[in-house]
Amino acid sequence: MHSDRIRELLESVSRGETEIDEALERLRMLPFEDTGYARIDHHRQLRRGFPEVLFCQGKTPEQITGIARRILEGGSDLLATRCAPEAFEAVRADLPGAVYHEEGRLFAVRLSPPRENGLVAIVSGGTADRPVCEEAALCAHYLGCAVERHYDVGVAGIHRLLSSWERIRAADVIIVVAGMEGALASVVAGLADAPVIAVPTSVGYGASFGGLAALLAMLNSCAGGVTVVNIDNGFGAAYAAAVICGRPSRR
Amino acid sequence: MHSDRIRELLESVSRGETEIDEALERLRMLPFEDTGYARIDHHRQLRRGFPEVLFCQGKTPEQITGIARRILEGGSDLLATRCAPEAFEAVRADLPGAVYHEEGRLFAVRLSPPRENGLVAIVSGGTADRPVCEEAALCAHYLGCAVERHYDVGVAGIHRLLSSWERIRAADVIIVVAGMEGALASVVAGLADAPVIAVPTSVGYGASFGGLAALLAMLNSCAGGVTVVNIDNGFGAAYAAAVICGRPSRR
Amino acid sequence: MHSDRIRELLESVSRGETEIDEALERLRMLPFEDTGYARIDHHRQLRRGFPEVLFCQGKTPEQITGIARRILEGGSDLLATRCAPEAFEAVRADLPGAVYHEEGRLFAVRLSPPRENGLVAIVSGGTADRPVCEEAALCAHYLGCAVERHYDVGVAGIHRLLSSWERIRAADVIIVVAGMEGALASVVAGLADAPVIAVPTSVGYGASFGGLAALLAMLNSCAGGVTVVNIDNGFGAAYAAAVICGRPSRR
Amino acid sequence: MHSDRIRELLESVSRGETEIDEALERLRMLPFEDTGYARIDHHRQLRRGFPEVLFCQGKTPEQITGIARRILEGGSDLLATRCAPEAFEAVRADLPGAVYHEEGRLFAVRLSPPRENGLVAIVSGGTADRPVCEEAALCAHYLGCAVERHYDVGVAGIHRLLSSWERIRAADVIIVVAGMEGALASVVAGLADAPVIAVPTSVGYGASFGGLAALLAMLNSCAGGVTVVNIDNGFGAAYAAAVICGRPSRR
Amino acid sequence: MHSDRIRELLESVSRGETEIDEALERLRMLPFEDTGYARIDHHRQLRRGFPEVLFCQGKTPEQITGIARRILEGGSDLLATRCAPEAFEAVRADLPGAVYHEEGRLFAVRLSPPRENGLVAIVSGGTADRPVCEEAALCAHYLGCAVERHYDVGVAGIHRLLSSWERIRAADVIIVVAGMEGALASVVAGLADAPVIAVPTSVGYGASFGGLAALLAMLNSCAGGVTVVNIDNGFGAAYAAAVICGRPSRR
Amino acid sequence: MHSDRIRELLESVSRGETEIDEALERLRMLPFEDTGYARIDHHRQLRRGFPEVLFCQGKTPEQITGIARRILEGGSDLLATRCAPEAFEAVRADLPGAVYHEEGRLFAVRLSPPRENGLVAIVSGGTADRPVCEEAALCAHYLGCAVERHYDVGVAGIHRLLSSWERIRAADVIIVVAGMEGALASVVAGLADAPVIAVPTSVGYGASFGGLAALLAMLNSCAGGVTVVNIDNGFGAAYAAAVICGRPSRR
Amino acid sequence: MHSDRIRELLESVSRGETEIDEALERLRMLPFEDTGYARIDHHRQLRRGFPEVLFCQGKTPEQITGIARRILEGGSDLLATRCAPEAFEAVRADLPGAVYHEEGRLFAVRLSPPRENGLVAIVSGGTADRPVCEEAALCAHYLGCAVERHYDVGVAGIHRLLSSWERIRAADVIIVVAGMEGALASVVAGLADAPVIAVPTSVGYGASFGGLAALLAMLNSCAGGVTVVNIDNGFGAAYAAAVICGRPSRR
Amino acid sequence: MHSDRIRELLESVSRGETEIDEALERLRMLPFEDTGYARIDHHRQLRRGFPEVLFCQGKTPEQITGIARRILEGGSDLLATRCAPEAFEAVRADLPGAVYHEEGRLFAVRLSPPRENGLVAIVSGGTADRPVCEEAALCAHYLGCAVERHYDVGVAGIHRLLSSWERIRAADVIIVVAGMEGALASVVAGLADAPVIAVPTSVGYGASFGGLAALLAMLNSCAGGVTVVNIDNGFGAAYAAAVICGRPSRR
Repeated sequence: MHSDRIRELLESVSRGETEIDEALERLRMLPFEDTGYARIDHHRQLRRGFPEVLFCQGKTPEQITGIARRILEGGSDLLATRCAPEAFEAVRADLPGAVYHEEGRLFAVRLSPPRENGLVAIVSGGTADRPVCEEAALCAHYLGCAVERHYDVGVAGIHRLLSSWERIRAADVIIVVAGMEGALASVVAGLADAPVIAVPTSVGYGASFGGLAALLAMLNSCAGGVTVVNIDNGFGAAYAAAVICGRPSRR
Repeated sequence: MHSDRIRELLESVSRGETEIDEALERLRMLPFEDTGYARIDHHRQLRRGFPEVLFCQGKTPEQITGIARRILEGGSDLLATRCAPEAFEAVRADLPGAVYHEEGRLFAVRLSPPRENGLVAIVSGGTADRPVCEEAALCAHYLGCAVERHYDVGVAGIHRLLSSWERIRAADVIIVVAGMEGALASVVAGLADAPVIAVPTSVGYGASFGGLAALLAMLNSCAGGVTVVNIDNGFGAAYAAAVICGRPSRR
Repeated sequence: MHSDRIRELLESVSRGETEIDEALERLRMLPFEDTGYARIDHHRQLRRGFPEVLFCQGKTPEQITGIARRILEGGSDLLATRCAPEAFEAVRADLPGAVYHEEGRLFAVRLSPPRENGLVAIVSGGTADRPVCEEAALCAHYLGCAVERHYDVGVAGIHRLLSSWERIRAADVIIVVAGMEGALASVVAGLADAPVIAVPTSVGYGASFGGLAALLAMLNSCAGGVTVVNIDNGFGAAYAAAVICGRPSRR
Repeated sequence: MHSDRIRELLESVSRGETEIDEALERLRMLPFEDTGYARIDHHRQLRRGFPEVLFCQGKTPEQITGIARRILEGGSDLLATRCAPEAFEAVRADLPGAVYHEEGRLFAVRLSPPRENGLVAIVSGGTADRPVCEEAALCAHYLGCAVERHYDVGVAGIHRLLSSWERIRAADVIIVVAGMEGALASVVAGLADAPVIAVPTSVGYGASFGGLAALLAMLNSCAGGVTVVNIDNGFGAAYAAAVICGRPSRR
Repeated sequence: MHSDRIRELLESVSRGETEIDEALERLRMLPFEDTGYARIDHHRQLRRGFPEVLFCQGKTPEQITGIARRILEGGSDLLATRCAPEAFEAVRADLPGAVYHEEGRLFAVRLSPPRENGLVAIVSGGTADRPVCEEAALCAHYLGCAVERHYDVGVAGIHRLLSSWERIRAADVIIVVAGMEGALASVVAGLADAPVIAVPTSVGYGASFGGLAALLAMLNSCAGGVTVVNIDNGFGAAYAAAVICGRPSRR
Repeated sequence: MHSDRIRELLESVSRGETEIDEALERLRMLPFEDTGYARIDHHRQLRRGFPEVLFCQGKTPEQITGIARRILEGGSDLLATRCAPEAFEAVRADLPGAVYHEEGRLFAVRLSPPRENGLVAIVSGGTADRPVCEEAALCAHYLGCAVERHYDVGVAGIHRLLSSWERIRAADVIIVVAGMEGALASVVAGLADAPVIAVPTSVGYGASFGGLAALLAMLNSCAGGVTVVNIDNGFGAAYAAAVICGRPSRR
Repeated sequence: MHSDRIRELLESVSRGETEIDEALERLRMLPFEDTGYARIDHHRQLRRGFPEVLFCQGKTPEQITGIARRILEGGSDLLATRCAPEAFEAVRADLPGAVYHEEGRLFAVRLSPPRENGLVAIVSGGTADRPVCEEAALCAHYLGCAVERHYDVGVAGIHRLLSSWERIRAADVIIVVAGMEGALASVVAGLADAPVIAVPTSVGYGASFGGLAALLAMLNSCAGGVTVVNIDNGFGAAYAAAVICGRPSRR
Repeated sequence: MHSDRIRELLESVSRGETEIDEALERLRMLPFEDTGYARIDHHRQLRRGFPEVLFCQGKTPEQITGIARRILEGGSDLLATRCAPEAFEAVRADLPGAVYHEEGRLFAVRLSPPRENGLVAIVSGGTADRPVCEEAALCAHYLGCAVERHYDVGVAGIHRLLSSWERIRAADVIIVVAGMEGALASVVAGLADAPVIAVPTSVGYGASFGGLAALLAMLNSCAGGVTVVNIDNGFGAAYAAAVICGRPSRR
């Protein structure tokens, strides 16, 4: 569409219907709105294939509500992550239809019909990683993927992982969520033939240094095909998974 | 196939053709050979979809030759990375047919016909990143992808990137290779609708801390869909890209 | 036993009492239960010689209670570490028989008779290290060792340590707990002929960097025979000590 | 003036009006007052061209009020940064005329007429960076510059930045405020011909390590002309910008 | 000029002389050449006010010669930094007119007449910092500034700095180069009313950690108006200084 | 005395008044008491020249009271550092005669007459460093030194320091307390001929990393004669200063 | 024996055969020799159960020869680690009987008959870890243990490890040697009931940071019973293993 | 003397013998010479009590010779540290009388008669620390102290230290040199009543991180009175020791 609009503009110039100066100006302008604190990018859905996702952390309730409304008024689905329960309480009255998921700390308003472009498996190493797992699982769901959860199949009892393997290997993308030493990513990637996205978590203490140990372990995975996102970034992993799952249908 | 062989074994037990103790033993045995210094995993091609790749760094010429021959004798293609020119000189006589790529520091012996499962774009921010770019490009090629190189389209002159964009956006996976501040990954991911795999490089000096600055920048990318591999790990990015490209055809 | 059960299964297949497909399935299945948030590994006591230990930090009271009950219902002793007083208050009504140790932040339910497989000495460098010391001492006790406490025998007054030495050297394993500069581990290991397990603590300020200084010092100990666990990981040291103490009797 | 006063003193010595010992003593004395907790430097405005700025963080209300009054009594404008709302509440009664800016966490008392020595553009990558942006914008204003704000023009949607570019490039100094990966500084500096001062922010999570990722990225910027200040140091960037803007008029 | 060419293109479309599709294509094209390994940005001089500077480190002699020639053929002055003596030996025959400065590790070819847009003072804390000082001084010179060198006026003998102060304070921009503890930047900035750009150097040993100590000290300077560039980045400081010096004349 | 007591013991053995076994035992015993949580070292005053100092952080009120009483009952002066106001409130009733200093967060009970073995100057760079300064000043006082305070003579206004210099240089030991970039230590040491002990403080933000920047700067001081203690360790600096001051009189 | 000698001395004093002063002196003397550069501790074998081990790195050939001879002349076995081939060449003529192991970089002279106190399994994740593995294996051998090597059973192909498991689990102590992400330690410890000692290696590149990634992963192992030694410290792991193996026989 | 010269100048002004302008100028001038690369501070000996020490690392032979000659021509003793053997070879012909100490990597020319202001003990933990020990010992010697060496009395065999204690405790200042875990500083300071200056060394490997482990351990010493210098900074420790030793005689 972007190219189409430029073409239209050029055609209009060609027909003499648009002045040179005006065309020059409009060529520099891509549509966005300015809410005063955040320019929302309606083009994003076209350009990237997904709506802009609202990251709530560090924003005031007024900022969250304002951005959320504009996204919805633009006709897009809304996905808002890193939203603490109190923050959602402060905005829920202004966003009717918003569904809040407490463990995943996110809310969503779905306008479009659900899709299931591919299957994403969320594989996890410990109960304390659940919030990150749920952020990944729910984001993958809202971004259009089918999701299966395989929590607590950590490497300290490798037989648990092996017993779940037949299901896990059916996935199109495997998201491995693990804190502490992050070894699960390597073990899973050594068995899998699907892309593996590793999410280090800040779960741990002492020399885990807020997730640094798991992050470094995952980056150094001896098993090929592992890529890594930021510590605790369940959304980022889900987003990348959804992009991968969505590829074939887009060609 | 693995399941098939277990099934066969159970059937043989069921028919009384195999002793219990022998079955017990064989159930634990998965085929591998022991060269004395490295067990080669011929099953890998079946399990992961790609042959084992030989990482030469830290290995003696004898070890490289030994492992390479076993892989080839097993009928697999051979891809050997991080091989310095002197190391290749020391093994080339023993590996007829091996093609060495100096800039990418790797060699390969291809037995199977080339495939082009998908298109991988290598996007790069500087001349000094070339060796990592070439490792990524050549590995993607040998792992069965078509490859396009877009080198030196860094963010310090954003117009260069924009002018190449129409080609880049056609790719199934975009690998962004950048040292220094690694900003290129965010800019590309902000424009792209394909999966973006970021490779930080150790190019830089001072506070780049051997690639740490680029690594952290890429992990913190404000643009969704970026996943990251280890510093200078062109192979890792290519491997992940090949896994993603190969998925659709495998379903 | 694991091998025995597989043998039984194979024998059953051999006798035609079990179908191939069922055997195939059961070969992949190792017994575990799924509570919805954490799969409990009853086999652990068999495989590792100790029951699974419940790490409470980061878990909700419901999760703690749920996992604890399953462990107890499986007939194992229960040991639950890193449990804050408020967390224990929230679960104590549901876990009759649980004994809470405030300084060591753990609780236990003992079903089996106490054992004293060997003697573990806990040697400590400061009053502020007491919680970690007590975690180590109590865990070692519940995991079946006799325990002696030698607290506040730090290197700043080496004569204190020397005056307690005759007792300390009688131990089968010596656990050294120290924050700040962690020098106690080296001094003890220089004198001891028993295995020394060092636990760095996060006690200190400024350039102790949350225990990093003590951790690095212990890893670099100039005295042989020192092995190290994570910062503040009293449990880990006790577990390793119990494994060492339990070895001779198991042979 | 400093040299003038020394000259006067020497002349007085020359005329025999001042004793040698007294002159010796006065040569060592530069005028300052001692409030008991902070010596205020009235000479600063002469020496550096700007009044001393009061950094409130870590100071008690009594200390803030005391220092602020002395500055005002010395006839200087007052600019007080890093002042939390509660801290301002505690001092506002004692500082009539003080204007508080909540988002920028600073207050000011202006005695001199406003100046607009040059134009400073504040360019920002995200809503959560607003407090740092406002600190920079307001400090630049009080230090005598015209200010334009271009917030939320981050690199994840490069078209937003490009569409604002015509305004941004008119600035005499561009201050780029960005957390996470800090890529905005490189993109802006690649386009700009004005000095670019980069302010990394502590906005982010996980591997942003409190702004370290953005700081390193900015220091490694591949685009020339970028200089960097401390994490979250909006004031420092504004001060440097004001020094640059004020230069031409001072010659 | 850029806008002019777009205007011309639109006018040509308006006159019917250019096809829509061709215009669409050319709108995306900005002029650059592709040497195979590095696209040279001739527009840079227009956009940023300075020619592209060639960073030689990590480039082969062929790459250096190739890029250098293109820059010269484009009519720009050439400045090539981080060029080791051996590297210059390898390219000097191909670049007649190139002048090499050994201490500053750079070479240049000047086509345009020298300018002296402003005065840059290079202030330094130690003999071992000389290479970085010279890189800064020579780059500032070639980028069109007058330069004064004040080397070895470190804080360990503060009187040396004070005795040179009258000269230093005449500068339009002060570049402070210091390794070890980097205190010189704060002392200079406390006295100066010109912009101070601090360059930490990797000179030092032990806990200087390759310049990290000086870098952190400079970022935390208690004196306002200090901005910082990467460790050993004499060029970056000179570039920023030249941009600042060039501003007034450009308005 | 230690040697004397061993001599006495040997003489007693020689005279047949003490049994061999008893002597053997007593040779290993050095006098200390065991309060259950901390062995107090009454010998310390003899061995080290100062009483044991009680570090309150991380200790319960019961532990503080218990240790404090034993020290006092042993006839020593009491100095208790890092004691928060609430902690002192909880123990004050049990420790009559204890004097609390809020800014220095310490309390003391003096039994011996005050001494002034030497003069310690406390030189400081900012109002926010006051708590650490006061800890140093008060500890030096209680450990037997005369103390002079020179606060807020930071490097950003070097003339303030120079104007106080005549007094500072009279000191036997100079303690420099500084956060942020810690440059004050180098400037003072460059001027001084007395030992300089540098105390980095955690005052600052961003890239000060909790005092790390100041610590590294002080360790890398280009001025000879600077030694450094832990971040915020005012007591440590005072203790070392008192040891130095006390030396001459002890010979 | 130590106590016996003191007893003898006291008895001699008691009988009047030894002067008080002489006894006083001898009580302080423990036997050691002074070679001028290193005091050798012949008591060590008595006190710690093993002879002093000679760490060659950083020592001159003269120092190595000198220390080695004294150890041998004292009647102890000699084990000398971290000895590069050239260093051994320089000393071999002076140490007849010394056997050099190139891959493990160590040499030994055995005077006592070999022992096999227990079985140590060396489990390894990669060919490049061989030197560290061999240091561990050979040290364990010379310190009196039987040794089994299981190299290249890394987690990227978990089936290799499982197929070797029956042998590995027979060991008294398992030493796991792994670089990169170090996940092997967790997987092994999850399966094992013997003590697991983890040795991180510096094998890897980029974000392995010289073995830091593996070290952190091992310290954060989610599987109980793992203790850790310094990076590449094969000797340390072997020493600790030998201490553990030797315990039962010593009781 | 400095004050005296100012007084003389003022008297000259008072007598009308010196012009105001000339006096003004000379008041700013402190005597120094400019060799072109390093201003030598002859006043230093007066101000700090010791001559300037020449740090050779990073300087060319010409620079070393030039600075050394000026120091000698100024009538001062010369002490030149961090001078590699090859560097000394290159300058020895130009500096007759210079004595080189290879292990301590320094040379000196003594013009003044030797002094022994106090006794400095150098206490060391390992043979590999010898170069740093010797730098400390020789510098202390040349700066006017008597020196005793107690090398290789590390904590791994605490009895060695105790047996040397009677001599060590006689020292006025104790310099503790230790790499690896640096525990020796705490043990010595716990016993000593003299000032203890700790020098961490870069001896070690793996997690010693070039001396960082020892540095942190020493900064966190639980024994009071320890101050620390930079890694491997034997000179710095000696200089501080000499300043402390020289104090009493200077009063």
